[in-house]
Amino acid sequence: MKYCGQCGHEVVVKAPPGDHLPRHICEHCGTIHYQNPKLVVGCVPEWQGSVLLCRRAIEPRAGFWTLPAGFMENGETLEQAALREAQEEALAEIELLAPLASVNVPDINQVHFMFRGRLRHEQYGVGAETLEVNLFSEDLIPWKDIAFPSVRYTLECFFADRRRGHYEFHITTWRKSVAV
Amino acid sequence: MKYCGQCGHEVVVKAPPGDHLPRHICEHCGTIHYQNPKLVVGCVPEWQGSVLLCRRAIEPRAGFWTLPAGFMENGETLEQAALREAQEEALAEIELLAPLASVNVPDINQVHFMFRGRLRHEQYGVGAETLEVNLFSEDLIPWKDIAFPSVRYTLECFFADRRRGHYEFHITTWRKSVAV
Repeated sequence: MKYCGQCGHEVVVKAPPGDHLPRHICEHCGTIHYQNPKLVVGCVPEWQGSVLLCRRAIEPRAGFWTLPAGFMENGETLEQAALREAQEEALAEIELLAPLASVNVPDINQVHFMFRGRLRHEQYGVGAETLEVNLFSEDLIPWKDIAFPSVRYTLECFFADRRRGHYEFHITTWRKSVAV
Repeated sequence: MKYCGQCGHEVVVKAPPGDHLPRHICEHCGTIHYQNPKLVVGCVPEWQGSVLLCRRAIEPRAGFWTLPAGFMENGETLEQAALREAQEEALAEIELLAPLASVNVPDINQVHFMFRGRLRHEQYGVGAETLEVNLFSEDLIPWKDIAFPSVRYTLECFFADRRRGHYEFHITTWRKSVAV
């Protein structure tokens, strides 16, 4: 950020009074431009024991498989964001069951939040950002072609919980250098 | 937002090609300025059966009681944000135990994410944004003077879970018009 979105003057980067972190500050109109992590929200959509995955048509990770998920919009709830993304990416109508996992991705200022859900009917299709949509049983999940570490983690939690017959909410952190 | 933070030219508000929502777009340099919900992160800090609350020194809701919580910063994990806020607001060192609750507040484009934790030692104090810090047993919680609905909900979940001896992760939505 170089200019103030409020008044168009150049911003400076320094800690405001009483703050401990440098911010983009407009010394003309006084606006402090805070920048905060973004939420990426999605779900694991189950149908008769299988899980719906989407093959990405767009970068990053075009051609790889992912769960339907995307940036949460202003005015939405986490649930609304997850339902919208399933609709947009997989043309799928989902019933959400419970929160399943949260993954910190601090290197790119994101928090991923994933629900567990099920398809309301066996009806799905290819959204604008998707090449292909398919149901996979656990033994056929394309583990080597999963798009993102948070998707891999969410699927691992889902199958492990399902195997022992008890679902929990999981949290982890993924860093480029080292998976914690 | 009236001006582009990248180049300083005026922005227009319209849906970019392939998008379904209006965004702030700079037609000079092509930047699309997305605006997304912010995460407010905190914890329930327990010490020998009591819970640490802070009386707010700043608006909104100055003078009312809250759990230590605040805006997550870029580069942080949810856990780091909760620990930092407890340190800043209550000068308290916390051990986080598990995620406890998430509250959608779509009217103000926020998601609140709260952990359950415990004080590492009986040592706390008044941070810069705090008037007073105190430990409250369940029967002495100042329910009428709680600052925010998400704090009330988190405390209710905490005490209900503790009473039945089993903690879960909870999610709800709070709207100005109606609590869902």
